[in-house]
Amino acid sequence: MKVKGKPVISSMRCTLLFLGIICAAEATVPSVHAQSNPDSALIRSIYDEALAHGEAYENLRVLTKDIGHRLSGSPSASKAMEWGQRILQSYGADSTWIMPVVVPSWTRGDRAESMTFGSAADRSLHITALGGSVGTPNDETIRGRVVVVKELDELKRMPREKVKGRIVLFNRPMDPVLINTGSAYGGAIDQRGSGASAAAEAGAIGALVRSLTHALDTLPHTGALRYKEDIRRIPAAAISTVDATWLGRQVTEHPDLEVSLQMNCRAFDDVEQGNVIGEWRGSERPNEIITLGGHLDSWDIGEGAHDDGAGIVHTLEVLRILKAIGYQPRHTIRFVLFINEENGNRGGKMYAKVAAEEQATSSKRYVAALESDAGGFVPRGFRIDAPDDEATQVQSWASLFDPYNVHQFRRGGAGVDISPLKELTPRPVLLGLSPDGQRYFDFHHSAQDIFENVHKRELELGAATFAAAVVLLDQQLPIQDTPD
Amino acid sequence: MKVKGKPVISSMRCTLLFLGIICAAEATVPSVHAQSNPDSALIRSIYDEALAHGEAYENLRVLTKDIGHRLSGSPSASKAMEWGQRILQSYGADSTWIMPVVVPSWTRGDRAESMTFGSAADRSLHITALGGSVGTPNDETIRGRVVVVKELDELKRMPREKVKGRIVLFNRPMDPVLINTGSAYGGAIDQRGSGASAAAEAGAIGALVRSLTHALDTLPHTGALRYKEDIRRIPAAAISTVDATWLGRQVTEHPDLEVSLQMNCRAFDDVEQGNVIGEWRGSERPNEIITLGGHLDSWDIGEGAHDDGAGIVHTLEVLRILKAIGYQPRHTIRFVLFINEENGNRGGKMYAKVAAEEQATSSKRYVAALESDAGGFVPRGFRIDAPDDEATQVQSWASLFDPYNVHQFRRGGAGVDISPLKELTPRPVLLGLSPDGQRYFDFHHSAQDIFENVHKRELELGAATFAAAVVLLDQQLPIQDTPD
Repeated sequence: MKVKGKPVISSMRCTLLFLGIICAAEATVPSVHAQSNPDSALIRSIYDEALAHGEAYENLRVLTKDIGHRLSGSPSASKAMEWGQRILQSYGADSTWIMPVVVPSWTRGDRAESMTFGSAADRSLHITALGGSVGTPNDETIRGRVVVVKELDELKRMPREKVKGRIVLFNRPMDPVLINTGSAYGGAIDQRGSGASAAAEAGAIGALVRSLTHALDTLPHTGALRYKEDIRRIPAAAISTVDATWLGRQVTEHPDLEVSLQMNCRAFDDVEQGNVIGEWRGSERPNEIITLGGHLDSWDIGEGAHDDGAGIVHTLEVLRILKAIGYQPRHTIRFVLFINEENGNRGGKMYAKVAAEEQATSSKRYVAALESDAGGFVPRGFRIDAPDDEATQVQSWASLFDPYNVHQFRRGGAGVDISPLKELTPRPVLLGLSPDGQRYFDFHHSAQDIFENVHKRELELGAATFAAAVVLLDQQLPIQDTPD
Repeated sequence: MKVKGKPVISSMRCTLLFLGIICAAEATVPSVHAQSNPDSALIRSIYDEALAHGEAYENLRVLTKDIGHRLSGSPSASKAMEWGQRILQSYGADSTWIMPVVVPSWTRGDRAESMTFGSAADRSLHITALGGSVGTPNDETIRGRVVVVKELDELKRMPREKVKGRIVLFNRPMDPVLINTGSAYGGAIDQRGSGASAAAEAGAIGALVRSLTHALDTLPHTGALRYKEDIRRIPAAAISTVDATWLGRQVTEHPDLEVSLQMNCRAFDDVEQGNVIGEWRGSERPNEIITLGGHLDSWDIGEGAHDDGAGIVHTLEVLRILKAIGYQPRHTIRFVLFINEENGNRGGKMYAKVAAEEQATSSKRYVAALESDAGGFVPRGFRIDAPDDEATQVQSWASLFDPYNVHQFRRGGAGVDISPLKELTPRPVLLGLSPDGQRYFDFHHSAQDIFENVHKRELELGAATFAAAVVLLDQQLPIQDTPD
């Protein structure tokens, strides 16, 4: 392990209380105790490189502005694959390749319209098709009265004539009192994922699903639905929180109110795209692979800036940073830009399938995998999905990360793309980067998930935190070799 | 202590990995261990109230949009005082009053212009007067060649003819590798606070100071300067980081380049305004006072939304929340909307002066003071300015705050307004709310410090965190009475 020395001591000039702020001294080299720890100096050099010479933000600008959104199967997703492979090469990966993955090819079409009839002030509703939805029959307008529910089970308990021929509005908000917005999202997502099938089962002709966000605004937020097998497929759209709130009230006041729905989204034949992989061979344990990545595909509204442009540029930046500071990995490090996380996870599944075959038939071992797929916000820590010993080891990093305000080392799911790797034997340590989540669902799967809503320093801090975890795993795995 | 029960268990429906996110279970009532702790249940009820029924965001909208910025001495600052007192009354303070404070009355005027002459492409520079600056002589344009320095000391080492009659550009950026942006601010603030006097001492006729922000943009960020006594007062302006960077380069390429400067800011006679105070009398220790507050004054560009509208609505929200959950304080709680933090801290000094007199002449004791003056961002923890025993007690709160992702319990300055209270004997425990600081200096003292750049949930979480600290101090002070 070589690290270019970079001793910098910040000076502290905040003597003028009068000037309106209480300042705090901060040394760019940690305390004497910390300096005696080589990991601590290495991590400091990673953060310094990310913050002083970072390229993540500029890479994100190119990905979001020059390429744009990149739904699986789309030409822009292919363009993003070429771009990603080129950057991996330019940053010095020993080799790069595409792992072919057959992905769905669903398109939103150019029409998603919904109107009310019979309220005090009829209006056009802000909607967009849920990913994977069928269009309305023959792309024509359907119309019906509205049933408002908060729980899917309510539909089962209703007399069939109360639902038949109607459009169901799923209107349960995300719970505001949950501190972690991902938990509130998880508590409302059944409406989006399973609402259409539950509505169809009860006899409905269409479904509107309250957008999954705490924000009260007029943005519809898309996302995947999944039709149950053997259930009639009815069209389903996300409706903005403002419109869902208004419509819910209107139906109470005007029970005969009707809503129209017209959408021309549809599925085409699957196409071949793939995971983009760059490999940096390890010096001591080249057959042991540490995988890190995010997903290159995005939804087709907005620019996929937080979801998951941030994870992609985090991944690329880890390679750039570690090369820049002269790091030499012990393990082989794989940088993976996964395809099709949003509507199928076929990229993640294919990667795990190949990994399982390699572990079964060769000496290759997938020892760890890390994912960044929760946005480009200020990093808070990691979600750890690992056996107890490895999880304890990761939790012992807390003091190393304390100078960077990275403090969460909680057990939990590490990321959709890498999750199929859990099935390997032996199984890798999985880590998910946890940025602050308060703003994430303001943008998630909406037209506002754009470059301008990503903050340069927060993005850079995320990249550095991700890189530091890669380096610590590289230094410390396998944990039985690590001295106490 | 009474607390309305509010047992809520969140459900967790995130079974569909396919739907594109890894969710984490979160109960709104903490673990069994935590439930057995009454403080834990109390804190949960505070966060629930803030997130489900919060009024901080709407209060901030009124303060920033209906009242606007509120520089000390201005009519809008007086309007804000009336508004704040009215809210304290409506939220149920036992009594409210104004503590008179004589404040400066400086005005920016309507002109701050700077042009270059002699570059490849002359331009108008984005500037604004530093607070307290004199205008240009007779409000007319001055013009001179430019001396660029990064350190104030460089001016002392220069031959006088290199500076005499010129305009000094202080162009040292905030250090990007410091994790805490307040430290980077502290490391650059000498240029704003003392640059004008250092330039005048060396013979210069004016000063331009690089804006104190990490962002590269065209926003000038104002803030207070302080003239040394017996030094000629020269006009000084903040210049945007984009313009400062450009001008620094131009001067290297075109050493004869000149810059003009015209400003008509000026100081008027001091006026009387005051600290707005609301008091809620304690049931057990009414003579022992816990003070909390922020500052009502702001700079006169932007809307003072983060600085310090957030602290003001945090303070008001603590009263509303604690009343809503039926809390009955042991100590007397003082809600203080301080005046004149930005350019004099006369409000904070007056409050401490009155407190010192009361401690000397009565049985009143100022046992603790808390300040929120670092923005409306997601809360990270507290800065603790207290004797060791009390600091250790505060640090022991870490596990109580862990469910809310509040994790920093560091020694440090707690806030400008409350800092003069340190001089009391006995001295109070001082705590400063520490929100995440990565975005703060994007907005700080600029036209972008507006309501739209404050996030509702982040603001609410800050208010709840502030309220929880007040309650814990109320429960635990004096610490020698606290059972282990």
